[in-house]
Amino acid sequence: MSVTAAKGFTAAGIAAGIKENGNPDLALVVNNGPRLAAAGVFTSNRVKAAPVLWSEQVLKGGQVSAVILNSGGANACTGAKGFQDTHATAEKVAEVLEGHSAGEVAVCSTGLIGVLLPMDKLLPGVETAAAQLSEHGGEKAAIAIKTTDTVHKTSVVTKDGWTVGGMAKGAGMLAPGLATMLVVLTTDAALDSDVLDRALRAATKVTFDRVDSDGCMSTNDTVLLLASGASEVTPEYEEFAEAVRTVCDDLGQQLIRDAEGASKDIKVEVVGAATEDDAVEVGRSIARNNLLKCAIHGEDPNWGRVLSAIGTTSAAFEPDRLNVAINGVWVCKNGGVGEDRDKVDMRYREVHIVADLAAGPATATIWTNDLTADYVHENSAYSS
Amino acid sequence: MSVTAAKGFTAAGIAAGIKENGNPDLALVVNNGPRLAAAGVFTSNRVKAAPVLWSEQVLKGGQVSAVILNSGGANACTGAKGFQDTHATAEKVAEVLEGHSAGEVAVCSTGLIGVLLPMDKLLPGVETAAAQLSEHGGEKAAIAIKTTDTVHKTSVVTKDGWTVGGMAKGAGMLAPGLATMLVVLTTDAALDSDVLDRALRAATKVTFDRVDSDGCMSTNDTVLLLASGASEVTPEYEEFAEAVRTVCDDLGQQLIRDAEGASKDIKVEVVGAATEDDAVEVGRSIARNNLLKCAIHGEDPNWGRVLSAIGTTSAAFEPDRLNVAINGVWVCKNGGVGEDRDKVDMRYREVHIVADLAAGPATATIWTNDLTADYVHENSAYSS
Repeated sequence: MSVTAAKGFTAAGIAAGIKENGNPDLALVVNNGPRLAAAGVFTSNRVKAAPVLWSEQVLKGGQVSAVILNSGGANACTGAKGFQDTHATAEKVAEVLEGHSAGEVAVCSTGLIGVLLPMDKLLPGVETAAAQLSEHGGEKAAIAIKTTDTVHKTSVVTKDGWTVGGMAKGAGMLAPGLATMLVVLTTDAALDSDVLDRALRAATKVTFDRVDSDGCMSTNDTVLLLASGASEVTPEYEEFAEAVRTVCDDLGQQLIRDAEGASKDIKVEVVGAATEDDAVEVGRSIARNNLLKCAIHGEDPNWGRVLSAIGTTSAAFEPDRLNVAINGVWVCKNGGVGEDRDKVDMRYREVHIVADLAAGPATATIWTNDLTADYVHENSAYSS
Repeated sequence: MSVTAAKGFTAAGIAAGIKENGNPDLALVVNNGPRLAAAGVFTSNRVKAAPVLWSEQVLKGGQVSAVILNSGGANACTGAKGFQDTHATAEKVAEVLEGHSAGEVAVCSTGLIGVLLPMDKLLPGVETAAAQLSEHGGEKAAIAIKTTDTVHKTSVVTKDGWTVGGMAKGAGMLAPGLATMLVVLTTDAALDSDVLDRALRAATKVTFDRVDSDGCMSTNDTVLLLASGASEVTPEYEEFAEAVRTVCDDLGQQLIRDAEGASKDIKVEVVGAATEDDAVEVGRSIARNNLLKCAIHGEDPNWGRVLSAIGTTSAAFEPDRLNVAINGVWVCKNGGVGEDRDKVDMRYREVHIVADLAAGPATATIWTNDLTADYVHENSAYSS
């Protein structure tokens, strides 16, 4: 169902020959209206790929009629020629789809950095994709944007007469991201771009922004939300925002479960923080600690590494009041040894760490993965 | 030679039975004067081990007559009992060495977090170590502080009539550290504690502080500098500071070369920065990027991951003016593709990355290691 679950959208996914192995590598999503409202959130990396620079400009207008996405090349660090290629891609989409303007065509790319896209394959691919646009094309589009993903990721929430659907690729957070994360959400709700923007930012802040697989930030991360208005229903903001958050949360969980080389999904829940910012800072610090991530891989409830990570932050806490639970066992109490660590059962894929700062009422949850030899292998061999 | 290269010092290293495998685990270094001047630098982790809390207090007095160091247990996150144990250890040293005061005995510990030390073995060990104190005991002391170190680390610089020597264990930076880093430096120069403090801080800032093997900060990192004055020579500050810096630099390099599971030593040299702070921030960001560290392991000159890491910083730069050289080949020029990446020879252990921000005259060098399956294995299996 994916991006075509909502009324008013068509999509396609094809193999344009960008990837040398012949796998699908080009996706097209078209908003057939009546509205073209849109919002977008992009990587906060200051080294931005050409498609990000382009799409940021497109989104300033608040209208997106189509999104063209390619895997097989990030078009990042490719200079003026790279930007020209992005521009030419948007022009080609506008030309092939009658009545569209390039300035309303968003572009997303993912793959290796520093390599120009094979435009001689990509531009004919746009024609092929346009010819295959379908109300049932959402799955194929989701498949065509995969890079190291082992499965394609889609999610749909249907409410009273309106729907939010979407697709995602990558594994990581909006920024940082293990690999580039691309997400396209669609809805047939009748909403303006400012409402979409508000709902999208609120959702990504507590979902993709808190999925931190390996602490590395991509040059290409993009999350787009397009609204066709085809349902002719204008939901209440809170209800709409919750639907967007639900789809983002579901897609974020799918990203974590498919992270490169991971054998554990780690939920880092920080409680008792003085502020939400403190909770997020502590959660990220724990989630990015390589020593802890190795310990979790070894099914070792090494709470000392959790405390070490907390100690590097500027959050409000007293070291001798910290408590840590791993899979329900409070292995650290008041900054020291707590319950018997042998009680911790770590056989299952999901690991739940609770870090209690004992400093206030705020909480935050960050998701990450363990650090494995497979992660090292996959990322040592990726481009060579 | 180690800590006994400078006149006025004796040392010992013994197996007290703290480590279950019977390896040496207790070191004692004694300053026989005539001066007892000392300076110390400690982890900036806010979760500090008991010996760090103790030694910070000792160093406030500017005098240290002895240092007792144990491997086989960090005595971190061990609560009031852990602090009592550190105190009792210092008292025992003062009692065994006639005429010493516990308030002038520094204590260092390294090993697992969250485990109380076996005081029934450690305290008798202090007597054994004291009985073996020798002007030739420096090597044995250096051996007794090893944890996952494969070799012991010592360094000596001798100038006109005075000497700076030292020993180190661990692999990492003063803070963060892969494993806890403990360093004891000695000199027979006749200097006051304020001069020692100034020279030590200046040296650690550009050596241990820029050795960042895995971005994880220990609860126990300690660097001490003790001066006996036994040479009766008072060197010029600059000459002394340079000698301390040379010993710290040498020990820091030994730490990197012995980092857990590493197959590459990576020198990240940031040039063209607007400020030294910018250069250090960018260097650390590159040095901590897991994707880049995996690529280097795979001998892949993946400059895109260098640019991604630079882009996450707040340093002054323009993305399209960045240049990156790997082992002498400028693979990235002006933010895009530069010289042929196939020209980069990465067969050797040392890898040299130069990141040119083209934004000013400042520079900084950070040392790190690659990320390997062996690192994952060693840190998955360490405590379980």
